[in-house]
Amino acid sequence: MTSAGQTALVERVLARDRTAVARAISVIERGEAGAAELLRGLRRNLGRAHRIGITGPPGAGKSSLVSALGALLVAQGKSIGVLAIDPSSQFTQGAVLGDRVRMAELDRSDGIFIRSMATRGQSGGLSPRTDAAADVLDAAGYDWLFIESVGVGQVELDIRNLVDTTLVALVPESGDQVQAIKAGLMEIADLYVVNKCDRPGAGAMVAAVQASVALQHHPDPAWLPRVMGAAVLNNDGVAEILAELERHRQHLSRDGRLLQGRRQGLLARLRKRVEQQLAARLHDSGAGPELEQAVDRILAGEESLEQVSERFLSEWVGKLAGGTPRGSGS
Amino acid sequence: MTSAGQTALVERVLARDRTAVARAISVIERGEAGAAELLRGLRRNLGRAHRIGITGPPGAGKSSLVSALGALLVAQGKSIGVLAIDPSSQFTQGAVLGDRVRMAELDRSDGIFIRSMATRGQSGGLSPRTDAAADVLDAAGYDWLFIESVGVGQVELDIRNLVDTTLVALVPESGDQVQAIKAGLMEIADLYVVNKCDRPGAGAMVAAVQASVALQHHPDPAWLPRVMGAAVLNNDGVAEILAELERHRQHLSRDGRLLQGRRQGLLARLRKRVEQQLAARLHDSGAGPELEQAVDRILAGEESLEQVSERFLSEWVGKLAGGTPRGSGS
Repeated sequence: MTSAGQTALVERVLARDRTAVARAISVIERGEAGAAELLRGLRRNLGRAHRIGITGPPGAGKSSLVSALGALLVAQGKSIGVLAIDPSSQFTQGAVLGDRVRMAELDRSDGIFIRSMATRGQSGGLSPRTDAAADVLDAAGYDWLFIESVGVGQVELDIRNLVDTTLVALVPESGDQVQAIKAGLMEIADLYVVNKCDRPGAGAMVAAVQASVALQHHPDPAWLPRVMGAAVLNNDGVAEILAELERHRQHLSRDGRLLQGRRQGLLARLRKRVEQQLAARLHDSGAGPELEQAVDRILAGEESLEQVSERFLSEWVGKLAGGTPRGSGS
Repeated sequence: MTSAGQTALVERVLARDRTAVARAISVIERGEAGAAELLRGLRRNLGRAHRIGITGPPGAGKSSLVSALGALLVAQGKSIGVLAIDPSSQFTQGAVLGDRVRMAELDRSDGIFIRSMATRGQSGGLSPRTDAAADVLDAAGYDWLFIESVGVGQVELDIRNLVDTTLVALVPESGDQVQAIKAGLMEIADLYVVNKCDRPGAGAMVAAVQASVALQHHPDPAWLPRVMGAAVLNNDGVAEILAELERHRQHLSRDGRLLQGRRQGLLARLRKRVEQQLAARLHDSGAGPELEQAVDRILAGEESLEQVSERFLSEWVGKLAGGTPRGSGS
């Protein structure tokens, strides 16, 4: 795309032209030339959208919840953008759930924009492109952004650094989950929703999550996360969840909390980016063959993994500074 | 501990003195002075144990499976070492399951050594200390090592790099799991066990896993992973699982596969260690304040996260090579 075409695309995104928004996200997703220029053009129009991360295990009804919340917000005259970053997402797989129809109807309205994005690698994880796609929707002026991702390990932490409010969705069906929660495997959220509360075991699940939350140290000492039951497919509890999200938004708007939270999230993302780029430089600089040779020495009991790592790093850092760094990875 | 004391400890570990093995793992776990020397002393006695990683979601019966397999192996005159690396482990939490009693009885015999280790950080992950503790048990001459860890995201991959054979345990109860498997969220194992097969939904679960395995590209094209049903608490299917583990061990013993697999796993662990140490050097060298300042420029739309990351890295690498690197992190 030409630079002039890029400028026109920026202007159309800022005017919330649906086709342009879709095109811009595609440019970013495919890593096309011009993606950086596009983002540069949007950069000064960021930060107005309230960003909500919705995470939790597969089958917790995250997509249904986003659909239901979206419908309420659109009815209130708000505009919403949705990024579904999850190979098992209902949006991605075209599931047959009833709410899919409702979501398809919503998607036709001007006030809502839905986009699925693939995860990078089998073990999940948000890519820098997720971040950039959220920026496109933010710059386009959608009032609320929902970023939905399956919660496995590190992903939950990643999503927290990308949003203003984190909601963890759970379901009562799984004894596994109760065990995981008891074991402290649950990450910290601003709001917990136990969905499918019409199923048996819902009370035990809510109690287990409440007990776990009581032991957590939420990063914001002034905020006590609530645990809410819901049956989203019956539209039961959805208005209450939206009210709680709104309450958190109001909470963040006071005492500079919103900016402080965004600064922390951005710092964490920046650190991670720097670490990833550094690792990419390491491997670009031909670390592979050297490390492979070292492996045989470790297997023979001549050196320890720690010793090899130390020695290699010292040598590599010296070499890197002396030579010209190659590229920057992806 | 004195250097002479350390040498004595090494000798006692090599003679498989239970108290010494426990002491050696404690030295490593607490990061006590002398841990490196201890490991150096054991280094030339490694590689004899067959290492099996057992992973899967909480509640899949991993500890019960290890107990049952351990009982069979001890009855065959084999010695086994067990590392349970999981905050929700039955071993750790002192659960009330029937097999706990059996395990406690086993633990009194000379042929079996059981140790729980804490994960590092809430989101799991194996620490270098897990690796070192496994080396202690290996050097002590236990024939089979079982490393049991809850499978969340990256951990499953980590454990694969640490062992010769990976077993993933699943349970039929959870529709979530079937969905996760269908979505390709399941990592690659050498053997899948669907435990609690006396429960409803077992057939569907086995079929879902089989369908998923058929689509996978196992790193060893000569090995087709089996999906086995079991009801471990009823001792149903345990002998068959042990036979399959033995079959994989025999398979690895041919055509240099065992060594090749260990070389690959070690290389992956070495790469990760180098990356972690590099990140530690980065943060030790005072990256924090500079990155914090950069965050404000990003928030103001003056620079992008990518630009800051690039510039920072180039400057940092130059500085690091010029100055004296501080420490190496832990």
